[in-house]
Amino acid sequence: MPLIATTQVMHFAAPLRLQSGASVRDYTLAFETYGALNADKSNAVLVCHALNASHHVAGSYPDKPKSEGWWDNMIGPGKPLDTNRFFVIGINNLGSCFGSTGPMHTNPDTGRVYGADFPVVTVEDWVHAQALLLDRLEVARLAAVMGGSLGGMQALAWALQYPQRVAHAVVIASAPNLTAENIAFNEVARRAIVTDPDFHGGHFYDHGVLPKRGLRIARMIGHITYLSDDVMNEKFGRQLRSAAQAVASVGATEPAPGRPQQASTPLGGSAARAVASVGAYRYSTQEVEFQIESYLRYQGDKFAEYFDANTYLLITRALDYFDPARTHGGDLSRALAAATCKFLLVSFTTDWRFSPSRSRELVKALLDNKRNISYAEIDAPHGHDAFLLDDPRYHSVVRAYFDNIAREVAV
Amino acid sequence: MPLIATTQVMHFAAPLRLQSGASVRDYTLAFETYGALNADKSNAVLVCHALNASHHVAGSYPDKPKSEGWWDNMIGPGKPLDTNRFFVIGINNLGSCFGSTGPMHTNPDTGRVYGADFPVVTVEDWVHAQALLLDRLEVARLAAVMGGSLGGMQALAWALQYPQRVAHAVVIASAPNLTAENIAFNEVARRAIVTDPDFHGGHFYDHGVLPKRGLRIARMIGHITYLSDDVMNEKFGRQLRSAAQAVASVGATEPAPGRPQQASTPLGGSAARAVASVGAYRYSTQEVEFQIESYLRYQGDKFAEYFDANTYLLITRALDYFDPARTHGGDLSRALAAATCKFLLVSFTTDWRFSPSRSRELVKALLDNKRNISYAEIDAPHGHDAFLLDDPRYHSVVRAYFDNIAREVAV
Repeated sequence: MPLIATTQVMHFAAPLRLQSGASVRDYTLAFETYGALNADKSNAVLVCHALNASHHVAGSYPDKPKSEGWWDNMIGPGKPLDTNRFFVIGINNLGSCFGSTGPMHTNPDTGRVYGADFPVVTVEDWVHAQALLLDRLEVARLAAVMGGSLGGMQALAWALQYPQRVAHAVVIASAPNLTAENIAFNEVARRAIVTDPDFHGGHFYDHGVLPKRGLRIARMIGHITYLSDDVMNEKFGRQLRSAAQAVASVGATEPAPGRPQQASTPLGGSAARAVASVGAYRYSTQEVEFQIESYLRYQGDKFAEYFDANTYLLITRALDYFDPARTHGGDLSRALAAATCKFLLVSFTTDWRFSPSRSRELVKALLDNKRNISYAEIDAPHGHDAFLLDDPRYHSVVRAYFDNIAREVAV
Repeated sequence: MPLIATTQVMHFAAPLRLQSGASVRDYTLAFETYGALNADKSNAVLVCHALNASHHVAGSYPDKPKSEGWWDNMIGPGKPLDTNRFFVIGINNLGSCFGSTGPMHTNPDTGRVYGADFPVVTVEDWVHAQALLLDRLEVARLAAVMGGSLGGMQALAWALQYPQRVAHAVVIASAPNLTAENIAFNEVARRAIVTDPDFHGGHFYDHGVLPKRGLRIARMIGHITYLSDDVMNEKFGRQLRSAAQAVASVGATEPAPGRPQQASTPLGGSAARAVASVGAYRYSTQEVEFQIESYLRYQGDKFAEYFDANTYLLITRALDYFDPARTHGGDLSRALAAATCKFLLVSFTTDWRFSPSRSRELVKALLDNKRNISYAEIDAPHGHDAFLLDDPRYHSVVRAYFDNIAREVAV
């Protein structure tokens, strides 16, 4: 029987003090839970989302069969994170645009929409807010906290901020901080948004417009960094659009519009495989000539329809700022000494956004502290996106890890 | 004595038939020459430029000491390509914006500025136009044709289009075609330009505006791909701008504005080396927080002041289209059978734009044809930009190669 998802909301009247010194009050967090909390409340697993995903982690909404959660291949009944055994919680982060309080909502202090005035939130702020929501759910301690990419940073931050509340942290395709190149890509995306004339200093809501040009560019840039060079060559190569029109269109394998998810490449089908470059060049600078251009434009257009521009700025900045070693003189081993839980770390060989070497930095720092860790480096061709795909080796590693956790919590 | 550069122009009244089927007539090519053509006219070397460089390859203009050519460290008296022995020619390509006929000039057929109506030009078209200019200079055969990146593609195209006119091709940091990822980055840059409201469909000249927002984004994206992750981390890391203000500013090591060049990272100085991330975060999404952001914004701003938007579209498209194997069923070895000259190929280990594996494809295809080739893979940290820097191992390889050519032509 398919897993049915139901979005819930929780309101918090008390101000949340942020790392920046600012506060947010009267805020709401959207969340979903799957499975049941056991009697001793020991089987809860928090799943943290990355840039453009949400609390809708698994399952589908009633009567919307194509509304699967963004990590539905990983989480559900009988899946690697088995909702028959674990009580899984997904929370939309503060400042996001899928139900929790964010820039498009009204600032209770001014009565105006926040827009660009929404305060900067950090990974640590999100974890703090998540902990307050778990308090309400009477989850004192997590069997595990899990996330990929930016979600993995949250899992790591949980282990550091609330070591007594986490038994296991599952940190996938993540990094201890962003490199200069990572920040550079974020910055270009932000500049594209901010310099879009329709951005209006972040108060575009008042003008009835959306900075879609900037969002499209931002998404196209992001998309390139989610994929490996190899998979782009395999899927698109130098295939011309005119030639591609003879094979199945890439768009046909896309998920339903409006579904917040990060998986950018549904690579299961073979129909979209690159064919040899045939047909004639059109000799145009502005028309689509190559299939990769068509794909990127499509992804950019789709994203610009549903994602909030100010949220994009906030979340990329949270990525930039995350750096637990920073307050320890740059010494990651010292920074991670606070973490006492067990760890599973996973990286993917072709991920050049958060390469395996970044995960190995985490592994080394945890080993320096004699922590109990498991690490898997998966030889997958899909780049950063691999963490959202159902590579059997990857899923079997996660499944085995949660099987062990299940034995510990006696579910 | 420093090399003095003098720009010359050559007018061509006869139409140049382009690969697309379109033609350009009444066009001008800007060029420079250095050194002297020997008696038997056997010592000419053509140097081809890449995306945003020009005919101003070497030397300086009188009374402008900071106006060095873009490859001045490589070319000049006593340099690896020694102008005391060789007659070196630099030509600004058709469609560029540094003196040759391009989109900002008047279309003789309409009396209006070309703008976006300038016809698409290909690497092969450029080589054709260069050959016509060499005819005028009475250079029947080149001792060598040399280029890096897109310039290397022109050197390769010379070997294929005019095998009898080239003795040696020096192809540096280049590739037999663009990958899907390469095209993807070009496409994002083009979309940023084309969707800038000031682009006006490519006829912004009529409106008295420039699509600077788009050009800035395009340049920032390009810049990231010119550098290696390593060198970005070494130079900028996670250094905050507030911390950086205590050390020498990056801008101080920049070349003079207006100098058309591709070298994006003057890495000689040690003052700009990354220091540990210290100081407080400002917690802002739009202000510059990290030094890498400041650097990229500066590069984008500078570029938008001097580079033509339509030229950017044309030149990135020429890159996209180059693919000599295409008319040979994708078989590069068959495609390169037409080349009879000797080759020097050079690649750089950290170049992820045109990685060593792309140069090795060329090496393999040439060896399949039993061609005489030399290949050097330089272990340099600077990414694609390395071809513009004066790594001593790299320069010594080029110097030795030209020493051999000098013996052949008896200069």
